[in-house]
Amino acid sequence: MENTIYERGVSRLKEVDSVAGERVIASLADISPDFGRYIIEFGFGEIYSRPGLTLQQRELATIAALTALGNAQPQLKVHLAAALNVGLTRTEIVETMIQMAVYAGFPAALNGLFAAKEVFAEHGV
Amino acid sequence: MENTIYERGVSRLKEVDSVAGERVIASLADISPDFGRYIIEFGFGEIYSRPGLTLQQRELATIAALTALGNAQPQLKVHLAAALNVGLTRTEIVETMIQMAVYAGFPAALNGLFAAKEVFAEHGV
Amino acid sequence: MENTIYERGVSRLKEVDSVAGERVIASLADISPDFGRYIIEFGFGEIYSRPGLTLQQRELATIAALTALGNAQPQLKVHLAAALNVGLTRTEIVETMIQMAVYAGFPAALNGLFAAKEVFAEHGV
Amino acid sequence: MENTIYERGVSRLKEVDSVAGERVIASLADISPDFGRYIIEFGFGEIYSRPGLTLQQRELATIAALTALGNAQPQLKVHLAAALNVGLTRTEIVETMIQMAVYAGFPAALNGLFAAKEVFAEHGV
Amino acid sequence: MENTIYERGVSRLKEVDSVAGERVIASLADISPDFGRYIIEFGFGEIYSRPGLTLQQRELATIAALTALGNAQPQLKVHLAAALNVGLTRTEIVETMIQMAVYAGFPAALNGLFAAKEVFAEHGV
Amino acid sequence: MENTIYERGVSRLKEVDSVAGERVIASLADISPDFGRYIIEFGFGEIYSRPGLTLQQRELATIAALTALGNAQPQLKVHLAAALNVGLTRTEIVETMIQMAVYAGFPAALNGLFAAKEVFAEHGV
Repeated sequence: MENTIYERGVSRLKEVDSVAGERVIASLADISPDFGRYIIEFGFGEIYSRPGLTLQQRELATIAALTALGNAQPQLKVHLAAALNVGLTRTEIVETMIQMAVYAGFPAALNGLFAAKEVFAEHGV
Repeated sequence: MENTIYERGVSRLKEVDSVAGERVIASLADISPDFGRYIIEFGFGEIYSRPGLTLQQRELATIAALTALGNAQPQLKVHLAAALNVGLTRTEIVETMIQMAVYAGFPAALNGLFAAKEVFAEHGV
Repeated sequence: MENTIYERGVSRLKEVDSVAGERVIASLADISPDFGRYIIEFGFGEIYSRPGLTLQQRELATIAALTALGNAQPQLKVHLAAALNVGLTRTEIVETMIQMAVYAGFPAALNGLFAAKEVFAEHGV
Repeated sequence: MENTIYERGVSRLKEVDSVAGERVIASLADISPDFGRYIIEFGFGEIYSRPGLTLQQRELATIAALTALGNAQPQLKVHLAAALNVGLTRTEIVETMIQMAVYAGFPAALNGLFAAKEVFAEHGV
Repeated sequence: MENTIYERGVSRLKEVDSVAGERVIASLADISPDFGRYIIEFGFGEIYSRPGLTLQQRELATIAALTALGNAQPQLKVHLAAALNVGLTRTEIVETMIQMAVYAGFPAALNGLFAAKEVFAEHGV
Repeated sequence: MENTIYERGVSRLKEVDSVAGERVIASLADISPDFGRYIIEFGFGEIYSRPGLTLQQRELATIAALTALGNAQPQLKVHLAAALNVGLTRTEIVETMIQMAVYAGFPAALNGLFAAKEVFAEHGV
């Protein structure tokens, strides 16, 4: 059954963002493969596989939170790519960043917008 | 023209959550009425009046961010009421909280869920 | 197999702190029982069941982190009780709090010490 | 010589805010008197005794930081009283709080303003 | 009238720091010019144009907050340049950073001091 | 007597990590030598010289806290080297990082693991 959660996680991760996600898992291979397994099982096999929110809503919530926290730029960039991948528009992403100025301050919003600018350029959006 | 932004803010705030929002503005009257004006003008007349995201998306982003930050429980409760008011379901709110465990840890998600429990009870949801 | 993880989590939680832990799980029953399950499965069935650190080391790391973050007082108190339960001494706990002044500032350390004072009093330490 | 730093700290603390400061030191007596000594020696005997900033500038910096961090309300209140005590005006304090909306978000500023409202009421300002 | 706020913001920004500020606004042109407008209107046309604090006090509060938060290094550097520009001395800036060790920990203060070292070198201070 | 604290700090710092620690002190020489002195006196002469926790427990608490805070990567790397130096194993360090996913989220744990990967490589662990 745990196997099922892992497999469900792998296939959910592919839906969200196969390239960046796989790169993260691969980069954990020589330091903690178990932690890569937890990302797949708990993150994608459990949380991102739950009904109740669309993948677009999930990525909107994630980029809002990571922009507000402001201390996880690499993960924010992975999820900006994922946000585009699951169908959020450039406008929706930019609006989410702008709104974070109200809740976490202008520097957090600015650093989010600059991360988005980089990811949009890489993806030709 | 600034007047227009203020009026637009007042009417947007009414759409989002008239009761809790007005209570916050009122509570600022004897310490900083200008700050109440900024909440209305910048927060609601500008940011929440922008096209590009629905009010449901805006409240989803806000409760995600405030849950992740974990240091603004009174404002999280105001926005949980607003989230219900603009049509987010109890399930969508609970799912957003649960997801925050992945990005900000289990205590942040737990404190978000307990705040939601209180607000749902007050609103008979 | 998932069942095994859940059962392992339940028994690990009992070792760490049966009373406070069960109270948290119970308080989630009417808002998100699934989140209670994740705490048991992921938190205790996976992470706290891993070899490599003793339970004393795990609780030391947890109270250090929650004191430094400073935005999860209820969870800090649960883990202060757990820390005593797995055998950390009052001195070890107080020293960990004091040290956090260096890494997260004096207010974080102070609020940690006051939480410890409360928990020590409740446990007659 | 360490004695001198302690004595200098005690007298500096008295200048800043004798009542609230002494209450904090007293509340540490049965959990960690050493930590009370560090507050006096390092906090007041060293940092607050340095030339280069006035006590008004020091308290302005402190209330800005604690408002922005948003996870140390008891200490923020102690320093709001201290800020009044060393001669910062109600206006200067309120303006500092308002400005924090730009750097740490509106909830942080709001919670700072509400703390100030309480402290002003207690001090009849 | 909104126009007036924008113009007031532009001229206030010039007083504070024309070079770095304009660079930030320019860098937003292709991702969110509206956000650049909000920085000018709300940040400088409103907040930094308020009476009650001098520009030196405002920059002191800002560098204290950004040093304590520790997750906005690019914005901290912009405001370190602004702090010098409005007349804060190297000593006042360094003292503010050192003091943050008490409220946000030694790493936050260290990273603030290293940012100051860079900005002082660029400005030949 | 203060001299004694400084000397005790120097020798304690040598026990913990002579190379990285001395580099930090040296880098402060031209911006704030006093802050270097506080690191030695307060950090190492006082806190790290206290009985009640072993150096291994102290470094475990420190890497837990810095990983959870997520905004002090340079200091986390210094303490990862120190953790190895005082005898924590690669496994104990990795386990501490993994556990932080529960309390501060997966991005904080991931960034901690990547910092550990770098430091392990530099030290040939």
